[in-house]
Amino acid sequence: MMNIKDIIKVNKLEKSVLEGTFGIEKEGIRVDDNQKLALTDHPELLGDRSYHPYIQTDFSEAQLELVTPPEHSLKETFKWLNALNDVMQRSVESDEYIWPFSMPACLPETEQIPIVRVRDQKEVAYREKLAEKYGKKKQLISGIHYNFSFSEQFVKKVFDHQTEYDSIKEVKNELHLKLARNFLRYQWILTYLYGAAPFAHHSFFEQDKEETPLTKPVRSVRNSSMGYHNSTDVIVRYDEVAHYVTDIEQLVAEGILSEEREFYGAARLRGNAKKIDQLNHTGIEYVEFRLFDLNPYSKLGITNEQARFIHLFSILMIWIEDSKAKEAIKEGTEKNEQTASEDPFAKSAYYQEGMELLQEMQAIASELKVESEYFEVIDQAIAALEDPSQTLAARLTQQIDSVDQYLKVGRKLGTQYKQEAKEKPYLLNGFEGMEMSSQLLLFDALQKGITVEVLDENDQFLKLQYKSHEEYVKNANMTAKDTYISHWIMENKTVTKKILKSKGFNVPDGEEFQSLEEATAAYYKFKNRSVVVKPKSTNYGLGISIFKNSPQEEDFKEALEIAFKEDTAILVEEFATGTEYRFFILDGKVKAVLHRVPANVKGDGRQTVRELIEQKNMDPLRGTNHRAPLEKIKFGNVEALTLKEQGYTFDSVPESGEIVYLRENSNISTGGDSIDYTDKMHSSYKELASRMAVPLGVKVTGIDLIIPDYTKPSTPEDPGYTVIEANFNPAMHMHAFVTEGKGRRLTRDILEMLFPELY
Amino acid sequence: MMNIKDIIKVNKLEKSVLEGTFGIEKEGIRVDDNQKLALTDHPELLGDRSYHPYIQTDFSEAQLELVTPPEHSLKETFKWLNALNDVMQRSVESDEYIWPFSMPACLPETEQIPIVRVRDQKEVAYREKLAEKYGKKKQLISGIHYNFSFSEQFVKKVFDHQTEYDSIKEVKNELHLKLARNFLRYQWILTYLYGAAPFAHHSFFEQDKEETPLTKPVRSVRNSSMGYHNSTDVIVRYDEVAHYVTDIEQLVAEGILSEEREFYGAARLRGNAKKIDQLNHTGIEYVEFRLFDLNPYSKLGITNEQARFIHLFSILMIWIEDSKAKEAIKEGTEKNEQTASEDPFAKSAYYQEGMELLQEMQAIASELKVESEYFEVIDQAIAALEDPSQTLAARLTQQIDSVDQYLKVGRKLGTQYKQEAKEKPYLLNGFEGMEMSSQLLLFDALQKGITVEVLDENDQFLKLQYKSHEEYVKNANMTAKDTYISHWIMENKTVTKKILKSKGFNVPDGEEFQSLEEATAAYYKFKNRSVVVKPKSTNYGLGISIFKNSPQEEDFKEALEIAFKEDTAILVEEFATGTEYRFFILDGKVKAVLHRVPANVKGDGRQTVRELIEQKNMDPLRGTNHRAPLEKIKFGNVEALTLKEQGYTFDSVPESGEIVYLRENSNISTGGDSIDYTDKMHSSYKELASRMAVPLGVKVTGIDLIIPDYTKPSTPEDPGYTVIEANFNPAMHMHAFVTEGKGRRLTRDILEMLFPELY
Repeated sequence: MMNIKDIIKVNKLEKSVLEGTFGIEKEGIRVDDNQKLALTDHPELLGDRSYHPYIQTDFSEAQLELVTPPEHSLKETFKWLNALNDVMQRSVESDEYIWPFSMPACLPETEQIPIVRVRDQKEVAYREKLAEKYGKKKQLISGIHYNFSFSEQFVKKVFDHQTEYDSIKEVKNELHLKLARNFLRYQWILTYLYGAAPFAHHSFFEQDKEETPLTKPVRSVRNSSMGYHNSTDVIVRYDEVAHYVTDIEQLVAEGILSEEREFYGAARLRGNAKKIDQLNHTGIEYVEFRLFDLNPYSKLGITNEQARFIHLFSILMIWIEDSKAKEAIKEGTEKNEQTASEDPFAKSAYYQEGMELLQEMQAIASELKVESEYFEVIDQAIAALEDPSQTLAARLTQQIDSVDQYLKVGRKLGTQYKQEAKEKPYLLNGFEGMEMSSQLLLFDALQKGITVEVLDENDQFLKLQYKSHEEYVKNANMTAKDTYISHWIMENKTVTKKILKSKGFNVPDGEEFQSLEEATAAYYKFKNRSVVVKPKSTNYGLGISIFKNSPQEEDFKEALEIAFKEDTAILVEEFATGTEYRFFILDGKVKAVLHRVPANVKGDGRQTVRELIEQKNMDPLRGTNHRAPLEKIKFGNVEALTLKEQGYTFDSVPESGEIVYLRENSNISTGGDSIDYTDKMHSSYKELASRMAVPLGVKVTGIDLIIPDYTKPSTPEDPGYTVIEANFNPAMHMHAFVTEGKGRRLTRDILEMLFPELY
Repeated sequence: MMNIKDIIKVNKLEKSVLEGTFGIEKEGIRVDDNQKLALTDHPELLGDRSYHPYIQTDFSEAQLELVTPPEHSLKETFKWLNALNDVMQRSVESDEYIWPFSMPACLPETEQIPIVRVRDQKEVAYREKLAEKYGKKKQLISGIHYNFSFSEQFVKKVFDHQTEYDSIKEVKNELHLKLARNFLRYQWILTYLYGAAPFAHHSFFEQDKEETPLTKPVRSVRNSSMGYHNSTDVIVRYDEVAHYVTDIEQLVAEGILSEEREFYGAARLRGNAKKIDQLNHTGIEYVEFRLFDLNPYSKLGITNEQARFIHLFSILMIWIEDSKAKEAIKEGTEKNEQTASEDPFAKSAYYQEGMELLQEMQAIASELKVESEYFEVIDQAIAALEDPSQTLAARLTQQIDSVDQYLKVGRKLGTQYKQEAKEKPYLLNGFEGMEMSSQLLLFDALQKGITVEVLDENDQFLKLQYKSHEEYVKNANMTAKDTYISHWIMENKTVTKKILKSKGFNVPDGEEFQSLEEATAAYYKFKNRSVVVKPKSTNYGLGISIFKNSPQEEDFKEALEIAFKEDTAILVEEFATGTEYRFFILDGKVKAVLHRVPANVKGDGRQTVRELIEQKNMDPLRGTNHRAPLEKIKFGNVEALTLKEQGYTFDSVPESGEIVYLRENSNISTGGDSIDYTDKMHSSYKELASRMAVPLGVKVTGIDLIIPDYTKPSTPEDPGYTVIEANFNPAMHMHAFVTEGKGRRLTRDILEMLFPELY
């Protein structure tokens, strides 16, 4: 084997060796309110497991598995894991939660444990065979799989700088075989540090109940002989890919394994295809490390720090010498089992070897000039090697001293993680930097099992895929279902009005002006009317003046000047009086109607305005800077002034039931309320709004109508509405979470429009 | 009749009365190189007369008629008239032109004069009847029809302030009846001022040749008894709409008129429908004034000044008293015929009446505070009334003193107008403020006979319609045929690249960075390569740095800083070497391939660089500030420096055949040349480019490929190209007018895509 260490040093590949592809799989069982294995079906909200790329079940119907897509940094991998955890937590039934430990909670009698209920009968049969062979209960042990490969660029550079191998594929195989071999040799240190299954509930054991490990905690029941492993006659070589393949195929042929995937090595070689012999052709794509217990102190089952350590550990594994001998691997496996069975507070039997490895790791970290976070995790590992009480297993053992306590801690952590995920249902952890509507759409897509690629997070750009059907979405509402020109029509208020007017809809009478002179000269047309003067392109409401009664010429001219400061063209329009409603149209149907009310509080005859605001602001739906569907009401000058006009201060105590306004404008962004009118709005206006989308040629739009009385039908003689705007990028989150009425999950409607075959 | 003058004054309707709807129809006959009536077919380029809304034929196949759509200002009407004139002039055969006089050029024997050749046999039969009744030659007299109505707003305001009439329709009828009545009474003054047919060619007269008016010029042969009129027993009342309708229907019933449209009153009342009895129901929509001779001194047959005068004259006609008596109209008609037959240099027989009217007109102009241009035309009219030699007829009589001269002047003016229209074929007069591609599309649509509405001129927004089929177009290339998301895909370079790469196309390797730190840290990835550093969003090429060889770390960092000044995200990409070609794709096909060459001149061994540039800049395709398809080469610092680097100054004399560059960059905007490669480009690249549009989901795009050798086929092993950009708003004018090779009229392809039923 080539000397990787020297190749890296001589050719300055220090940055390159750190690159790689990462993936995490996380299992966890659903339990009920009494910490018993849930016997219910897989949550229907989580789509169809026959294709779901992210959320699957493993052995049992209750054993959820999160699978992150391959990503090029741990940061990205954790974003996905966070997001998938949110999706999972918010999809389980209200009386269930995810058990945070690797070892199961209370298990029922074996025959009651449900195997996956999927349509594919081969999958069920395979699991039935496993149940028979290993026992159903062992199958319920959950853990973390960590997938890794070095980057193509790094492999290529290594290939360029060596002479032993003829192809990039060979180099890639060699690198990853070495990684797997050394990983198997030294895996014990990971179990020492991160083993987190010191005991199992007595219901886990089929017969011999006095063996319940609670009486004698270990580092990892799961990694010990009591865990879920192949029988000892399952021995596979890692010296060459061909041997690895042959050995597994042989085991299957001999019936020792029922299928290739029954091979449970702590490091599995993975190719592109399911059949293992493809490894001979395509080479190793990545290595799957399977020994990690769930870290119950993390909602994700694994922390960022652990992942960083494993990453550096993987580099260490190719950096140091190795052995191709079978015995080395066998020895490593035994050391791991030995470590797993140690008392959590005992010093490691392999302390010396561990310390040497960790010191070498430190040297590598310096060599590679890694970020300081990497040094920290090595320091922590060294400290834990010195002091076993700092290991996860020891911490758990300290906290838990009884069966009751085991279930209590499990419940506390499990329900806490669920609660955290549900507290801000509009946020998708990992992608919380995206716009809210995009987060909701992403959530819905992940929940449904649509394959998602975040093409550009800052640009809210997603690729969605189901089988060969691909769709692109920007801002959660811009899709291939809409035409290019419809965007430009709506972007131009004059054009929108002309088109709607030509089709007989009631638009405000008005005119566009390109110059102040022209607009000033047109005063005679507007002097006896209610008018609004505004820049042609909206810019957060800047430059708008409203004259509810006939404007004076001076004032009119001033309004024109203000509007012209914002744009090179302005509009002077009839001002329509009434209440403004946003109609969200999708594919010819009104899916939501919303009315926005200025920031306000309702008195209770007891609390001051200040207290009422503070109380209202406690709502987790209220946030700041557009990071929540509603904004907190501010204690600013405008609010004080608005109060003053009503004869109040922040310290006044309004009467019970009295509504006190803090703002005149109804924007959500200044603390306004949102009220759903979808069902209340008279159907004639919904009919009209949906028809307006036709000449605009648009599938997804938000149309703003002014309606004086939403209960009175629109008639040809008395239309009862004025249409003032059609929006090409209508927000959806504000319909999803409303102050009053029913929320409308429009992002799901978008997905249904894009993928009708899934709904 | 209500007192309009007082209603206007008391209610301050001075601005409102000036508002109206305007339209102009302009006839003109095609003649051949020898000033003989063209016997050829209507130009095929001008589409199909069965639906053409703008360019029709009247009596004869050779008699073209331009029809402007109704517009709300004379300015708009003249824009259309200018544009339609351009379309017509550029569509006639190279050996024909449009005769500028009302009276025809050399006419053949009567039987040879072609009646319109249209499919509708009723139309042909109607004209045959007219030919029999009036003689074919009279039918070839051409003129201007001026259509006008007061604005709805004005009519409504008048209605609001009177008590005589019960409906807006009645008021509208009354206003326009009065307009028509007084117009007929005082029309003579328009003939006096604008009569422009002092004589006719002798071939116009069937038998009695000594009556050729050349020997005795008049003001207007056309308006005289020798013109084309109904017989004297055609008398129609204008006191009420019902009478007007009854009288015409009666004339048809009696066989005096063959159809209602054969009524040739100098002021016709027009409704919405073709059948005249609809006037009783819908009321008068507008009045059509038909007495105007072609003004041969204007390429449009009528000047702006004339139109302004007629506008003010129309207001005068409702301002002053009137009479409903039949006799008043009869008298007016006789005065007009009398005026038409006067010697052009004679004082008007009705001088006194004329002067009173013009003075009243001045008073009205002051009352209405009209723009100064209006006062000027009144002053001119007064001067011409005082001095007959200032009338059009007198000016023509002065210029033309023989048959030969008549034909010569007609030829000179007619060919000059054609030449003017053809000189800058990329410009559409009237709409020359629009982007060039939009002007070309507008031209093509008008030529084809597609109904066009300019929804927003500044925003390049058009509505196109054929029958009930409506399409909207912005920037000549943004349509409903493209999807909304395709725009956003192309707008985002990273997303475009990801998608193209995922489909196997050869994109430059590279990475996007959001921060300087991140980008600086990635230096190791690019240090041994040719790279380009650029802002994520292009902004006229700002912030781009190219390193053709491995960049130094310092320089790389500086390039990053420069790029980050332009955008919050930057791209570092492999720099592809080769020649850049723009592939214009439409609906899956490559329609044009263009290569741009830096500004250059080719030596002739004689002229200096300066002279060569001046010569090259003479090309009418070269302009300034993007108002022409190519830009003039400048004599700036960059050009001087570029010359210096080649060892030249502006005063050097390059050898014959030597190419001297004035610029390093190939932009058209800095004087670059454009070379069409559509037919030369190897088909494999065209195939590739058209396939790239598929995953982008786009119908119309401009894809930029770097190709080192365009003659060598692309193969899977050696693709031979790199795709660097897909443009969502690809220019089309640069393909239409090229420095070298064949121009490609892509705007016609756009129309064909939108309206396949027309092609």
